[in-house]
Amino acid sequence: MSGVRVAGTGLTPFGNAPERTSRDLFAEATQTAFEESGVPRADVEAVFYGNFMGELAEHQGHQGPLMAEAAGVQAPATRYESACASSGMAIRDAVMRVRNGEHDVVLVGGAERMTNLGTAGATEALAIAADDLWEVRAGMTFPGAYALMAQAYFDEFGGGREDLANVAVKNHDNALTNEKAQYQTAISVEEALDAPTVSSPLGLYDSCPLSDGAAALVITSEEYADEHDLDAPVAITGTGQGGDRMALHDRNHLARSPAARDAGAEAYADAGVDASDVDLAEVHDCFTIAEVLAIEALDLAQIGEGISAARDGRTTADGDVPINLSGGLKAKGHPVGATGASQIAEVTKLLAGTHPNSEHVADATTGLAHNAGGTVASATVHVLEVME
Amino acid sequence: MSGVRVAGTGLTPFGNAPERTSRDLFAEATQTAFEESGVPRADVEAVFYGNFMGELAEHQGHQGPLMAEAAGVQAPATRYESACASSGMAIRDAVMRVRNGEHDVVLVGGAERMTNLGTAGATEALAIAADDLWEVRAGMTFPGAYALMAQAYFDEFGGGREDLANVAVKNHDNALTNEKAQYQTAISVEEALDAPTVSSPLGLYDSCPLSDGAAALVITSEEYADEHDLDAPVAITGTGQGGDRMALHDRNHLARSPAARDAGAEAYADAGVDASDVDLAEVHDCFTIAEVLAIEALDLAQIGEGISAARDGRTTADGDVPINLSGGLKAKGHPVGATGASQIAEVTKLLAGTHPNSEHVADATTGLAHNAGGTVASATVHVLEVME
Repeated sequence: MSGVRVAGTGLTPFGNAPERTSRDLFAEATQTAFEESGVPRADVEAVFYGNFMGELAEHQGHQGPLMAEAAGVQAPATRYESACASSGMAIRDAVMRVRNGEHDVVLVGGAERMTNLGTAGATEALAIAADDLWEVRAGMTFPGAYALMAQAYFDEFGGGREDLANVAVKNHDNALTNEKAQYQTAISVEEALDAPTVSSPLGLYDSCPLSDGAAALVITSEEYADEHDLDAPVAITGTGQGGDRMALHDRNHLARSPAARDAGAEAYADAGVDASDVDLAEVHDCFTIAEVLAIEALDLAQIGEGISAARDGRTTADGDVPINLSGGLKAKGHPVGATGASQIAEVTKLLAGTHPNSEHVADATTGLAHNAGGTVASATVHVLEVME
Repeated sequence: MSGVRVAGTGLTPFGNAPERTSRDLFAEATQTAFEESGVPRADVEAVFYGNFMGELAEHQGHQGPLMAEAAGVQAPATRYESACASSGMAIRDAVMRVRNGEHDVVLVGGAERMTNLGTAGATEALAIAADDLWEVRAGMTFPGAYALMAQAYFDEFGGGREDLANVAVKNHDNALTNEKAQYQTAISVEEALDAPTVSSPLGLYDSCPLSDGAAALVITSEEYADEHDLDAPVAITGTGQGGDRMALHDRNHLARSPAARDAGAEAYADAGVDASDVDLAEVHDCFTIAEVLAIEALDLAQIGEGISAARDGRTTADGDVPINLSGGLKAKGHPVGATGASQIAEVTKLLAGTHPNSEHVADATTGLAHNAGGTVASATVHVLEVME
């Protein structure tokens, strides 16, 4: 079984670029990733690509071969779609293939074009990640779904809007040094609480923005990295995937994420680590409450205690386990298909010491990335470790 | 490395069922597959699912977890989209996972709902498998694209509409015994030639129909099959994938399918067989010319000689290498996301001796399935062999 190294990463700016196609975005991200890696495009053996709503946003399916082309790569390409966990799934498969010796060099990534649909159009498009027959037709949108989850959490464990506001404040703070982030602006708890309500109890600052963007990773076997003397000190050592019932009403608890729990447990076991080894994590905070549920599911906070983690400083940049040092989906932005790959890029740089926020985690050796689809009906978790 | 067995197969009828959702179709197919396999649902460790146009036909993405639920399975699920090769990609990944010991039992399949869009709507939806910017907006549809490929073939190698008509006649003949086929009716060369032109030189009988349907496979490791004394004599012994430029105008030849050639070469090498070992094949005949290009790319006919294979009886039921004994996409139908999995189901039954057309291939030990996306910008090939 081969080790799996992240040899290069590339991100476009995340934000409003309604005029840019997903292939244009992906070309830029892959260009950076190839340059950073020093790996020639001709060595790529397969492409694993995540995209969520290309059919609706660009009238474009079958993006696998199109994105190989945009990346300047001649290799078979597969597109993965699992809502907001699309590139998480692509990464998982890529890791398996390299680990099992099928490939030595793969290109992994994702892209999403969203803002060209406008806010109402994109919200409607995002809804295809929920159950169309039983949720969407009843009027459910994702802000509404996560609002239900937040209210269920408050009812069971206490906490409230101010706790969630602290999550948003933390992630905005973290994004201040991230030049690719959609929002490089600090916010205050008061501003968050005063912001318009999106779906009670969630306000505008509890919600990630609509974003265009792409992310790419050049991943190689350990043997290839050694042979070619690559600067690739970070390995993906654990991968896990979980699933849940699609519709909220079919679940036992609204304030739990068993898909994330299962994915995390599998990834920890796969890497031979446990939650106490994790020095930092990028988790899927499409809404502030999602970060709370994620860190609980991943054992980075006790059940019922995730809500106070940001407020108490346990997950801030200088806390016990900094969460979303990139700014998270909340402040970095959330171009859906790109998010999972961008998380791996951020964790890689944080662990390698090349991230603007690496100073907060100077001794970190183990990081985690958690990517979720819909209301966490699907999830992937990856563990990354410094090898040198 | 474990052997990979097909333990159970299930197909819905292929045809017009505009009122049925893809989850309804997939539930039926998986029910049959589980019954045939004797494998309990609780043993399934992962679900690999192909779907192409759910976003447009059902306003439903994120179908992975939804389909696990429809199948009555609690396991992580991944959706693959590669246009008409969607479930081929799902199968390839499933095979890799079982082979490498990640899983012992997986559920694989695909579904598509199409006819609810109507002919014009479905044709427009299918076009997302081509390059939206450079082909679709210029008015290209798939009948037009394959017509260009047919004309290029005729120009280079000769042959004509009557040769293609023989492909359609053969596939309709083969479907006469297939109770799940959309068309269980014989046609004549004259009828095919007299049918309305769809896109010159292709007529109505050169084209597969629009179809609703689902296909499912229960796949296990050899060890699991042995331990549980399953009746699973057929193994998937080779897998391959190829890619090509997306747009026709970016290719060197219109009358070649290098993605299928690469996928075939990889699958043959993987299985340790060559084309001369193949006793029967299901190939992706979305149009009659596609079958011609496929058998040439797969080395089942010499370049330039595929066109006469059906007419000369080399690929008919009692020919040297019977092609599309199921009726093919042409007569069996083509619910896009289900097609790749349905091909594996048909080859499995043909080799196991349980297919109505098995009598034509009584001594067959090796079969092949070829699934293609778009104008073959992506392709998978799988080799199946009888193990007992």
